Amino acid sequence: MALAARMLAARFPPSDDGFRVVRHRVFAIASDGDLMEGVSGEASSLAGHLGLSDLVVLYDDNRITIEGSTDLAFSEDVCRRYESYGWHVQSVERGDDVDAVARALDAAVAETERPSLIRCRTRIADGAPTKQGTAEAHGSPLGEEEARATKQALGWPLEPAFLVPGDVRQHFQAAAGRGAGERRAWEDGFARWRQRNPDKAREWDETHSRRVMRDISESLLRHAPDGPGATRAHAGKVLERAAELVPQLVGGSADLAPSTLTLLARSSSVSRGRFEGRNLHFGVREHAMGGILNGMLYHGRFRPYGATFLVFSDYMRPSIRLAALSGLPAIYVFTHDSIFLGEDGPTHEPIEHAFALRLIPNLWVYRPADGFECALAWGQALERLAGPTAILLTRQKVPAIERTATGELADPRRGGYRVAGDGRADVVLAATGSELHLAVAAGRQLAGDGRRADVVSIPCLERFLVEDEAYRERLIPPGVPLVTIEAGRTAPWSVLGRDALHIGIDRFGASAPAEVLAGELGFTPEKVTARIREWLDRRR
Amino acid sequence: MALAARMLAARFPPSDDGFRVVRHRVFAIASDGDLMEGVSGEASSLAGHLGLSDLVVLYDDNRITIEGSTDLAFSEDVCRRYESYGWHVQSVERGDDVDAVARALDAAVAETERPSLIRCRTRIADGAPTKQGTAEAHGSPLGEEEARATKQALGWPLEPAFLVPGDVRQHFQAAAGRGAGERRAWEDGFARWRQRNPDKAREWDETHSRRVMRDISESLLRHAPDGPGATRAHAGKVLERAAELVPQLVGGSADLAPSTLTLLARSSSVSRGRFEGRNLHFGVREHAMGGILNGMLYHGRFRPYGATFLVFSDYMRPSIRLAALSGLPAIYVFTHDSIFLGEDGPTHEPIEHAFALRLIPNLWVYRPADGFECALAWGQALERLAGPTAILLTRQKVPAIERTATGELADPRRGGYRVAGDGRADVVLAATGSELHLAVAAGRQLAGDGRRADVVSIPCLERFLVEDEAYRERLIPPGVPLVTIEAGRTAPWSVLGRDALHIGIDRFGASAPAEVLAGELGFTPEKVTARIREWLDRRR
Repeated sequence: MALAARMLAARFPPSDDGFRVVRHRVFAIASDGDLMEGVSGEASSLAGHLGLSDLVVLYDDNRITIEGSTDLAFSEDVCRRYESYGWHVQSVERGDDVDAVARALDAAVAETERPSLIRCRTRIADGAPTKQGTAEAHGSPLGEEEARATKQALGWPLEPAFLVPGDVRQHFQAAAGRGAGERRAWEDGFARWRQRNPDKAREWDETHSRRVMRDISESLLRHAPDGPGATRAHAGKVLERAAELVPQLVGGSADLAPSTLTLLARSSSVSRGRFEGRNLHFGVREHAMGGILNGMLYHGRFRPYGATFLVFSDYMRPSIRLAALSGLPAIYVFTHDSIFLGEDGPTHEPIEHAFALRLIPNLWVYRPADGFECALAWGQALERLAGPTAILLTRQKVPAIERTATGELADPRRGGYRVAGDGRADVVLAATGSELHLAVAAGRQLAGDGRRADVVSIPCLERFLVEDEAYRERLIPPGVPLVTIEAGRTAPWSVLGRDALHIGIDRFGASAPAEVLAGELGFTPEKVTARIREWLDRRR
Repeated sequence: MALAARMLAARFPPSDDGFRVVRHRVFAIASDGDLMEGVSGEASSLAGHLGLSDLVVLYDDNRITIEGSTDLAFSEDVCRRYESYGWHVQSVERGDDVDAVARALDAAVAETERPSLIRCRTRIADGAPTKQGTAEAHGSPLGEEEARATKQALGWPLEPAFLVPGDVRQHFQAAAGRGAGERRAWEDGFARWRQRNPDKAREWDETHSRRVMRDISESLLRHAPDGPGATRAHAGKVLERAAELVPQLVGGSADLAPSTLTLLARSSSVSRGRFEGRNLHFGVREHAMGGILNGMLYHGRFRPYGATFLVFSDYMRPSIRLAALSGLPAIYVFTHDSIFLGEDGPTHEPIEHAFALRLIPNLWVYRPADGFECALAWGQALERLAGPTAILLTRQKVPAIERTATGELADPRRGGYRVAGDGRADVVLAATGSELHLAVAAGRQLAGDGRRADVVSIPCLERFLVEDEAYRERLIPPGVPLVTIEAGRTAPWSVLGRDALHIGIDRFGASAPAEVLAGELGFTPEKVTARIREWLDRRR
């Protein structure tokens, strides 16, 4: 959020008369547990690197976690660690000393170069006679008796159960009054700024929400890359065009841009003191990347993407799940999407990841087969507001798909559509991404046997499964044998049909050039066709 | 590995004559990228906390990552950060100064209180005329021409392509000779130690490998907990008994032991200077926990387990995958395994996690239904050597399962078995974990309609799917309607059968008491039975 605030401020700098259009600060309260998790270290290191001085973190140092004292597992010097990240660090020895905390907040706000950590030493459940300073107060309520004893110990009225004293109410009412005044002043200034800066005001309005231009999908499809190529390369071209059309689009990768091909050639990089660029460098920090995309989307003025290899989606899975749960339209570009990345071997070869992502509710997973489907995927991802989208791309070159389907034209935007055949086939071959061309080739070979095959592309299974049954059954008619082809786990593909052969990979990969792996693991047109023939023959 | 070394040394301390049975040191080489990833921060903080002084990390500070200079994203003071973790830190300004590195290693080895970081400032591809110090040298080979130019620049013979100069060979041969001598000296000392310490020698032999006592499964099943209860509580009792029988069994949780019920009551906690205990406190660091289990298994003398909530398995998924890929028999205890954890709400409620884990090749996932199956799961997990096992457990109480199956007795150890019915049913109800009792109840209600239902428990789907088809078809006969019940994503369950109703949850959860959620989302005996009735009626 602090990064988005700074980037927005760079796009709408103070006007000549000194009016500051964008003036965000981001305050956070963090616990011992938050600071133990690796993701907070990743994000804090980057915040220090970028000098996000509008970020202030209050660290509630109560030395208690669920298992007991932090002596059990957490004795590092947190302040020194945050200094190593380049943060401005202060310590308040009594976290209940309101004046001391206020002074520290003032100093943090005055700091203009570095994000701020204010360590506040506190006691958990302060005042609770038997539970203060203990783990018992961490995960469960005090209970009625202890709550009463705590009130007595603090000299607090026992009734009513929830009490806001008059002076507290007054204090907050005064604060609300001050805030309302400041808001009015900003609104007046903003109205004057709009009049004097009509071009910037138009830009402000155009980028005011996550919603992008209405016909982005059509624009991208009109200029879809054609010819053979790696889908990461096709998608890189689509991204470049999308960036021209969608000014809110910003993003980067977890130190893999030369491989994910996600660097915007016509934009500069965001760095300390230079926030007008659109290229982000997250470092080797996938989990923080996911979290930062979520923060930027909560901020609300950018449409961010984050890129890495598909196998590393595991590192950021908690952030992906939160985006899906929170309805945040993050876009993930996951390249090197199968064993066909080759020599890096099984540690880098995703087998289970496509379906592991498909299991997350409200996440859409696109696995485009060629330049056309790359344009489709990016367009749909940008138009989607209800949740995140992952785009899975190949490292290796794949052929361009020749679309020869006749009869009723199925709609690619519905997640599944017919690529070849006429809807009156003896067998349906359904495939995704880099295996679609195998299905097309197998379909042609089967035609030589006198077998009519429809080839169905399913670039987005989630999208296809929410289609009405009539549409789905026009593409994959019940009773017609179904073959699915995807270079990943086969089991879940059986959701699609009853009578089916599922061609895929249910073991870890291996290190070898892609074409060797294709031969050994059965992903050539000949081997795919042979398996389909054998299966069809056995069914007779 | 450094933790395992220290724990082993505590179990086999130096003998009276000064012979040190266990004398490990662990050396690691780490890059900029390694130190950016959050997991290394988690593990390093814990290593400093525990004072693992036998660990020495050489940090190859070449300031180059795949995207370019570390100036792009990584400007923190790494040395200061490691000091904050309580490490002994040294800096070598010229990493190619062998004497300086050797001196630093000597000082690191002499350090007895803290793990050591030796930062070595280096230049990547040193000597390569056009690529040294650049990102081009990071991810791809130099190429023939640049390799030749590099050799010329370094004054190195162009041929042969791979050359080990005579003095280098001599140096390493001398080192091998010294090492062989030291090994013989240790072996002699060890032989004497064995004779003088027969009890300890027997303990050494018994715990020498990951393999545990042969009949552990039967021992645990003989004393399986009975009666109703949360399966986390049942499994906690089984774990306590397993710990008595398996001295290599050690483990802990990511700051959730009071909830996962995985603290061994009769053992002490591992802490700085006290490594004889068996309870580990990983802190709120799930990813490091997974990595530490792997390290201990590579070390080879312990059978470690790690516990957290099932939803947090996402945080450690990369480590789980590596265990599966590397054939390491780690044991994961994942409690709070469904929406029925209740009030914590959808962030904490796993929906997709059971199947997301099942997608990882070579990982076995147990979801036991009662005390008997908890004993089964722990026994199978301990007997398994070929890969990791996850045990999924409930927060909420579940009824004890009454096993009334007649006819041929199916074998629970085969991953699926019959709990009720006689194998000649009109409908098969298959369920896992906390939903098995719903299947049993629904089976009884259907009997009232004159419908005969078999109830099949599938505590481990992976184990069941590798069974021969004959066994699987005896339990789930083709042609007999199948109903699956699991409080998670339904789609992948269709792997099991053709003509099936899958009862599950395909949305995120909600915050409410478990019984309210069960009613709202259809997980009561009445609602389950009603859905099955409706489905069976429609099929007629």
